[in-house]
Amino acid sequence: MDYPLTLSAVFRRAEALFGKQELVARNADKSIHRYTYADWANRARRLASAFESLGLKSTDRIATLAWNHGVHLEAYFAIPLMGGVLHTLNLRLHPDEIAYIANHAEDRAVVVDPSLLPLWEKVRPQLKSKVIEIVNGDPKSPGASPDALGYETLVAAAKPIPDRPDVDERSAAAMCYTSGTTGAPKGVVYSHRSTVIHTMAQSMKSCMGIGEEDTVMPVVPMFHANAWGMPFAAIMNGAKLVNPGPHLDPASLIDLFVKERPTIVGGVPTIWIAVQQVLEQNPGKYDLSSIRAMYVGGSAVPQALIETYEKKFGLRIVQAWGMTEMSPLGSVAHEPPREKFASDDDRFKYRAKQGRPAPFVDIRARSEDGIVPWDGQTMGELEVRGPWISSAYYNRPDAADRFTDDGWFKTGDIVTIDGSGTIQVQDRSKDVIKSGGEWISSVALECALMGHPAVAEAAVISVEHPKWAERPLAAVVLKPGQKASPADLKQFLAPQFPKFWLPDAFEFVEAIPRTSAGKFKKSELRKQFKDYRLAE
Amino acid sequence: MDYPLTLSAVFRRAEALFGKQELVARNADKSIHRYTYADWANRARRLASAFESLGLKSTDRIATLAWNHGVHLEAYFAIPLMGGVLHTLNLRLHPDEIAYIANHAEDRAVVVDPSLLPLWEKVRPQLKSKVIEIVNGDPKSPGASPDALGYETLVAAAKPIPDRPDVDERSAAAMCYTSGTTGAPKGVVYSHRSTVIHTMAQSMKSCMGIGEEDTVMPVVPMFHANAWGMPFAAIMNGAKLVNPGPHLDPASLIDLFVKERPTIVGGVPTIWIAVQQVLEQNPGKYDLSSIRAMYVGGSAVPQALIETYEKKFGLRIVQAWGMTEMSPLGSVAHEPPREKFASDDDRFKYRAKQGRPAPFVDIRARSEDGIVPWDGQTMGELEVRGPWISSAYYNRPDAADRFTDDGWFKTGDIVTIDGSGTIQVQDRSKDVIKSGGEWISSVALECALMGHPAVAEAAVISVEHPKWAERPLAAVVLKPGQKASPADLKQFLAPQFPKFWLPDAFEFVEAIPRTSAGKFKKSELRKQFKDYRLAE
Repeated sequence: MDYPLTLSAVFRRAEALFGKQELVARNADKSIHRYTYADWANRARRLASAFESLGLKSTDRIATLAWNHGVHLEAYFAIPLMGGVLHTLNLRLHPDEIAYIANHAEDRAVVVDPSLLPLWEKVRPQLKSKVIEIVNGDPKSPGASPDALGYETLVAAAKPIPDRPDVDERSAAAMCYTSGTTGAPKGVVYSHRSTVIHTMAQSMKSCMGIGEEDTVMPVVPMFHANAWGMPFAAIMNGAKLVNPGPHLDPASLIDLFVKERPTIVGGVPTIWIAVQQVLEQNPGKYDLSSIRAMYVGGSAVPQALIETYEKKFGLRIVQAWGMTEMSPLGSVAHEPPREKFASDDDRFKYRAKQGRPAPFVDIRARSEDGIVPWDGQTMGELEVRGPWISSAYYNRPDAADRFTDDGWFKTGDIVTIDGSGTIQVQDRSKDVIKSGGEWISSVALECALMGHPAVAEAAVISVEHPKWAERPLAAVVLKPGQKASPADLKQFLAPQFPKFWLPDAFEFVEAIPRTSAGKFKKSELRKQFKDYRLAE
Repeated sequence: MDYPLTLSAVFRRAEALFGKQELVARNADKSIHRYTYADWANRARRLASAFESLGLKSTDRIATLAWNHGVHLEAYFAIPLMGGVLHTLNLRLHPDEIAYIANHAEDRAVVVDPSLLPLWEKVRPQLKSKVIEIVNGDPKSPGASPDALGYETLVAAAKPIPDRPDVDERSAAAMCYTSGTTGAPKGVVYSHRSTVIHTMAQSMKSCMGIGEEDTVMPVVPMFHANAWGMPFAAIMNGAKLVNPGPHLDPASLIDLFVKERPTIVGGVPTIWIAVQQVLEQNPGKYDLSSIRAMYVGGSAVPQALIETYEKKFGLRIVQAWGMTEMSPLGSVAHEPPREKFASDDDRFKYRAKQGRPAPFVDIRARSEDGIVPWDGQTMGELEVRGPWISSAYYNRPDAADRFTDDGWFKTGDIVTIDGSGTIQVQDRSKDVIKSGGEWISSVALECALMGHPAVAEAAVISVEHPKWAERPLAAVVLKPGQKASPADLKQFLAPQFPKFWLPDAFEFVEAIPRTSAGKFKKSELRKQFKDYRLAE
């Protein structure tokens, strides 16, 4: 039974059993690329050899700077196959940040999309050591290094790497940096073992339940926590995989939904808010009936979005919660199948929570008074541990305070947990509003505000208050052509919250600033409103 | 990420998340017992403490001699919770064999059903050291030892065991002895890790796909390879579990199907052959529509059985293949969802094979010429390896020849493997018929014969032949009131096989001898026909 859990085993299985299955991706020029698992596996084996022929060795970090497509998926497996560490760079970061990350990880090579060479060109001069540049296209593309190599030439010249004795399952297979809003980005290393166990869990029904009959379309980028593990789970189970390439606009996505008939899709809420607008403008035009679950995570999903998708389009949004440090799966909000919900509204309320933990994810929440009870009321910072949850950041002893002495990861999320183990995220610890000693959940207020028919987006932050220390301020983006007054919004919220939770001020803005992951960047918003003065 | 994969983690999850879920079992007196996960978990924690209070320690083997029911399920988790090793004794074995096994395993205690005390009474005098006797009922029941303890008294007096730091995932959690037809029984030890990974795989769609919405009913005994892992998978996922207790007759089973509405059931072919007869005698009487999959394994499933269930009763038989040494999951014959089968018959033919390997089960087959190609034609002995597959028997260095030098388990099954990795078992290596240097599959002949309308059961064995060394003889049990001549049967087989495969002789018998696991005992049959002389 000394069989190590490695990505090589996942790869061999896919190659042996699912050779005829399809992999589909949209190219940069909007055309569709389509090939089989058999072709993909052969190219991945060749790529692994090519890395070796370039002098890259076991434990070397090999970066990717790429959208979601077949070549990226080849690198996903080729790098661990030759013992290297897949390091997905986040193309939405500033070049200085990418350079910091590539230097910190000591990346020795990068596979880069031609369209991202202008970005990489700004990173390159800041690199502290030589990084072999492999262009997924013409190596003479604008912005490429003079000694850049062509991906296709390398792959064509290489022989498929043969099966090797499996590496230690605890050796590194992949890494990813968090794009936190404060401090330098922190690296998280995923071992073969952690990735495999995460993939098995992700395949289970209480999580995504991916099977061979599925067509999986990760709209979440492959550089965000490995697209939530969807590529690994699709490959292990022999599912058809559809990748959107760089085209994440609603029209391009809907076109893939209609033509490739995904059964499972995944992405952040902003993607589905944008898609919703197109669907509303074209009622009945698109047949999206193949989709049985839309997994949404990355930030809290407003109940109104879940309801709209189900009632208007017959599509099921399933909220999932996780973090880069967690591979990223933490919990999934499938409603308990035998639960008797008193009303449809109760059912949707349940699904607007973050759900119950995945198998082997242990949870607890802690307030200043210690571990909080599972009463659905008491807030505390969520702590987690499990076989795919980090117990340290890569080479960052200064960030050890994010882990408890007994080995749990402090998520920074302020939550309640109810008697059935259902988590509800109330806030990020740095965003929670402390008014007169009581906590107010900015997330709850935002999600409720986004249920108002005139509101497109809302973010709630704390501003200083002479008496209560902090009070909530809501920054609101109205839908085009819609109107609502602060009094309207306050009245809309009033029945849903204790009186002292209601924002003291509503400010109408053009847009909410966002992080590279598409989340609200509240630090930016707080800066914007830092001199805001509320009346006592 | 140093989170060990243990049954304690599975237990804690079930207790924390699924407290309200139901566990149902039929009692010895035919009444129904029903309680919740919360009650079960509390009793399991008390039982774990009780074991400790009896002086039992970590690594001690604690046996069970019991049918499928709640108390057995309490022991399933209580024993690993306190660090012990769950040793399920096979109540169908001869008392001498049970005594050999209990002595070899050095069992220190046993939990025994009152109805099995007459059996245990014959085992007890042969035990080499003291075994604490815990009766699941009145400790003064007939056949009990004078110092036997009562299960309920122990549990009532004990305090629930608190959570402990998890044990090493590679420590032993359970063990099971194979009831081979030759040689002394051999023990297989399952670690926490192997059981957990097996449970995760069993939960995946390509295997049983057990989820919280399921009601799982293992008809296979909990003393046969842990009821194929179904109890562990049900508990991990929070499914409702229904156990048949000692009542495995068709009427009792059908009664549970109708009243408890299982979605997934599992058992050996003989169970379903018996159920079929009752269903055929009572067309339309029973509503079995809740069952979405009947997993059948333990011996090859005749295509006719699969077809009958689907066409007559609308029930889907899914064949699974495995062995005690494999925890036991090896492969499952879900037809590939995107495969285009030319006809219904082709589809059923596929499902009569043993299917494709579970995730992380590596397969290869070897003939005298080495590893055979995956051509669906060439026969070889199947070798397997994986995270839940044994690499040695417990304290049996003499049986090391069942494992290859590079760590694969030699299954003793003669198989073909096709290009998509689908296994078809042709025979047990000791049953395969070698006629003039060519192999003939006794299993294929049997399965085909059982498709004849007059045939209830058939077993094919080799008998000596002066020219061809061995030739096939078919022992046939006719259905009551049905007739068929040897010529009829030969004509029925002729279109399906090469001419030289057709049995030289057909002998009509009252019954096929069986092993304790309900499989055909061909060694017995060969003994019966050892002096049979075929004409040249």
